[in-house]
Amino acid sequence: RLMLSSQRIPELSSFVARTNTCGELRSSHLGQEVTLCGWIQYRRQNIFLVLRDFHGLVQVVIPQDESAASVKKILCEAPMESVVQVSGTVISRPPGQENPKMPTGEIEIKVKSAQLLNTCKKLPFEIKDFVKGAKEFVIPSREPGKFYCLPQSPQQFKQLLMVGGLDRYFQVARCYRDEGSRPDRQPEFTQIDIEMSFVDQFGIRSLIEGLLQYSWPSDKDPVVVPFPSMTFAEALASYGTDKPDTRFGMKIVDISDVFRNTKVGFLQDALSKPQGTVKAICISEGAKYLKRKDIESLRKLAADHFNQEVLPVFPKANRNWNSPVAKSIMEEQRSELIRLMEIQEDGVVLLTAGEHRKACSVLGKLRLECADLLEARGLVLRDPALFSFLWVVDFPLFLPKEENPGELESAHHPFTAPHPSDIHLLHTEPKQVRSQHYDLVLNGNEIGGGSIRIHDAELQRYILATLLKEDVKLLSHLLQALDFGAPPHGGIALGLDRLICLVTGAPSIRDVIAFPKSFRGHDLMSNAPDSLPPEELKPYHIQVSWPADSE
Amino acid sequence: RLMLSSQRIPELSSFVARTNTCGELRSSHLGQEVTLCGWIQYRRQNIFLVLRDFHGLVQVVIPQDESAASVKKILCEAPMESVVQVSGTVISRPPGQENPKMPTGEIEIKVKSAQLLNTCKKLPFEIKDFVKGAKEFVIPSREPGKFYCLPQSPQQFKQLLMVGGLDRYFQVARCYRDEGSRPDRQPEFTQIDIEMSFVDQFGIRSLIEGLLQYSWPSDKDPVVVPFPSMTFAEALASYGTDKPDTRFGMKIVDISDVFRNTKVGFLQDALSKPQGTVKAICISEGAKYLKRKDIESLRKLAADHFNQEVLPVFPKANRNWNSPVAKSIMEEQRSELIRLMEIQEDGVVLLTAGEHRKACSVLGKLRLECADLLEARGLVLRDPALFSFLWVVDFPLFLPKEENPGELESAHHPFTAPHPSDIHLLHTEPKQVRSQHYDLVLNGNEIGGGSIRIHDAELQRYILATLLKEDVKLLSHLLQALDFGAPPHGGIALGLDRLICLVTGAPSIRDVIAFPKSFRGHDLMSNAPDSLPPEELKPYHIQVSWPADSE
Repeated sequence: RLMLSSQRIPELSSFVARTNTCGELRSSHLGQEVTLCGWIQYRRQNIFLVLRDFHGLVQVVIPQDESAASVKKILCEAPMESVVQVSGTVISRPPGQENPKMPTGEIEIKVKSAQLLNTCKKLPFEIKDFVKGAKEFVIPSREPGKFYCLPQSPQQFKQLLMVGGLDRYFQVARCYRDEGSRPDRQPEFTQIDIEMSFVDQFGIRSLIEGLLQYSWPSDKDPVVVPFPSMTFAEALASYGTDKPDTRFGMKIVDISDVFRNTKVGFLQDALSKPQGTVKAICISEGAKYLKRKDIESLRKLAADHFNQEVLPVFPKANRNWNSPVAKSIMEEQRSELIRLMEIQEDGVVLLTAGEHRKACSVLGKLRLECADLLEARGLVLRDPALFSFLWVVDFPLFLPKEENPGELESAHHPFTAPHPSDIHLLHTEPKQVRSQHYDLVLNGNEIGGGSIRIHDAELQRYILATLLKEDVKLLSHLLQALDFGAPPHGGIALGLDRLICLVTGAPSIRDVIAFPKSFRGHDLMSNAPDSLPPEELKPYHIQVSWPADSE
Repeated sequence: RLMLSSQRIPELSSFVARTNTCGELRSSHLGQEVTLCGWIQYRRQNIFLVLRDFHGLVQVVIPQDESAASVKKILCEAPMESVVQVSGTVISRPPGQENPKMPTGEIEIKVKSAQLLNTCKKLPFEIKDFVKGAKEFVIPSREPGKFYCLPQSPQQFKQLLMVGGLDRYFQVARCYRDEGSRPDRQPEFTQIDIEMSFVDQFGIRSLIEGLLQYSWPSDKDPVVVPFPSMTFAEALASYGTDKPDTRFGMKIVDISDVFRNTKVGFLQDALSKPQGTVKAICISEGAKYLKRKDIESLRKLAADHFNQEVLPVFPKANRNWNSPVAKSIMEEQRSELIRLMEIQEDGVVLLTAGEHRKACSVLGKLRLECADLLEARGLVLRDPALFSFLWVVDFPLFLPKEENPGELESAHHPFTAPHPSDIHLLHTEPKQVRSQHYDLVLNGNEIGGGSIRIHDAELQRYILATLLKEDVKLLSHLLQALDFGAPPHGGIALGLDRLICLVTGAPSIRDVIAFPKSFRGHDLMSNAPDSLPPEELKPYHIQVSWPADSE
């Protein structure tokens, strides 16, 4: 950022809700209609405002005529350092009123419309304790009993940079997470971390699409933008997951209506419940490529991991290992199934019943298992040259807590902004509120995620204290920052190791990291973690607590 | 690296000792004279070699005629996995001998000359303990008594990547150093870290010059390349430092010969000793701009910090606060001084005597102090728009240990290669050996440094064990790696924070770091380091050792 020059400044308004930066307007812009975002630096007698952004200052003329009373009200009543968006025309300052000391001093903005983006409380504010949660590696310092910690991600820091007016932030960030031993996770990994002010979801998405298109290896097929997008609800209903692999079909179909009058016991049971559904996927050529033991292993997987019964049906094939239960499916249901699911010769249907989310999840898992099985038999479902990017959007803002489903927790993190269409539901049906979170999925793997953040302190306080029952003191530094003129902002982080792993077709992210840690978190090259003599711990005022049963 | 495509491969031979990579040669290169570097993958009946680098394989024809006996000897006697450089002509393989499975299978290299760059011991090798020195932050792990540490720099890791055949490495690396409280040092900082195989000093220097030229802010005067270079000996003699600010003159001049017959006591004393010298700088317009108390404060600085006497002389000005000692300088010496130092009206000479290095150091310090004083009086010596890059080269490889001057320590780090012209001195006069280290200096600040590294295990062992008296076991992983076909390699690291600080004219690197630590190493935003409850330390098997006198 610090190196950007005047020649490049026009690019700085890409992706965001302005046409120009405050600092770039000159006489050459006279007559242009512009939209600016910034902080109120100064106001003179309710006639002029000086608007400031990261790139400079510009004078704004507040309209005085009756018809623009609402615009005048916004601009005159907003406290200093509040964040506003103004639209208007670039005009010359009257002769003699030019300010030669100001780069934009020959012009001013005749405002037609204005929007208050955030109000600012009285400055200054004090930064309080920032206590860290679990799973962060701790580093003893030379002060007795005091520890640093390694950040899990720069999330709060980058939001504070936006509050500080930094406009845009881009970092190749090293992140550290102590997750114990988890396969294909590394305690140290790298993300491309981005945050922007005055941006919406589509701005962030375009930026990322352009970035991937630009940096894509030229020996692969070019990336086509924009990437398709899918709501979380559709991803769950059709693919049984929030990270659908859209390289192949085999989508989940709701076939509840076909079985309203079924005699099959477990379908009958499911449909008699208020949220009951019957769902299915169709494996094309399944009867040709899958063996009886394949189908049995799929049913066992569903039973063992999801406690779900799965019924294989061969609507067009006569196979002697057909399930006996399937025989009680009537001819009428069979033909309706064939019609609804467009089943061809040798198609196999896997059918399950139960509550929507659960039925979809099990079929989503079976869908991927089937793809593996069919590809092991020589069919190609997923072209290795195909890179299928997908935005998944409109996630729920909250989920019921696992340990106490009566309470809510954030589906992603508590700074995620609610979907503008659902804000009215926050007070009445918070579970129904969708968020402005978005995930980027590549070939069924989540490679990034981000959101538009809450910039309104009251909303953030309500969500933290009332809905999530969090101790707001722990996040008071962020809440206070929002109170003092935080701009609307949002961002994203891409997992660089996982992205490179997928692009190169490597089997594990450990293959694209220079000195990867083992499953147990060991660096085999440097033999870390390693013992240290007590005298090396002394400057850090710590000693080892040896377990009582250690040898 | 992983993203590089075939279209870009030609660029991969810039800066290094080859014309092409092994993997890129095709029939279109027939007849071209090429130079390749790589590892011996395979040898067939002393007639053919397969040479491998990071980019692929190529077949090399070993010459069989008597006149090329020495080339044949090198290529046939080198163990497998040894590193060689070969030059020769790209020729067609004889009809029927093409290998369609090999991208370079239509051609082979008719070799004219060859050089063994490194031999390889029998593979494989085992990686031993990698014990870390002081000043690294330690991180307790979930294994009792075992600690990770945060790397001070990726030095050894990047060298191992070169040994692993990675060809080129580039990282924006976060480094961590526990240096306690030091002004303008940050415990966490960022460097641009680079390492390349088959490169020499000039290759690294061109790469950095191009990088700075390319990324230079366009609102400043363009960077002119190549940057000038200066030996360490000249930097010391003319500027009294290894990081000269070349934006202004006021160079140190050796005036020993002028004072051979002096009556001034302290000059006489100094010159009577075998290493004795008399040195001076001339402050143009000093008599006009500097006050008596300025000169006195300069003399006091020299006395307090260097224990050196400094004599001000006004060869052309009559000033009543002239030093009484200066009056005993004879007229003949005065006119010789004016001639030698090209002294103008109002020029003031600061003169000192003693051993070369010490006399230069004190005058180097006074030179910068004088510049500050003159600029405080309104003269402009250092144009704020001027960015004066300088390579400082030919450093000594070793320095006498401060605590025991009879022993040697590395001037930089023990992996630095000796200057090729001085290798014969390693066994006889190691103190005289110059290194292949280079520093990049900008306006008197060191912004980067690097070196060509030792790739010969025997040489590395001799330097570590015999000259530096180090315990080679602690570095056995690196020594073993060098034994198994390490390519010649070298690199550099630029301090990104300091570079940006200088480019932007910020007074401190804390002004160009997002959340800088205070002098005491505190992050005021997040209040780190901070206390942790004992239960959060429990998973890491540590407890705080409270000092006995703590309150």
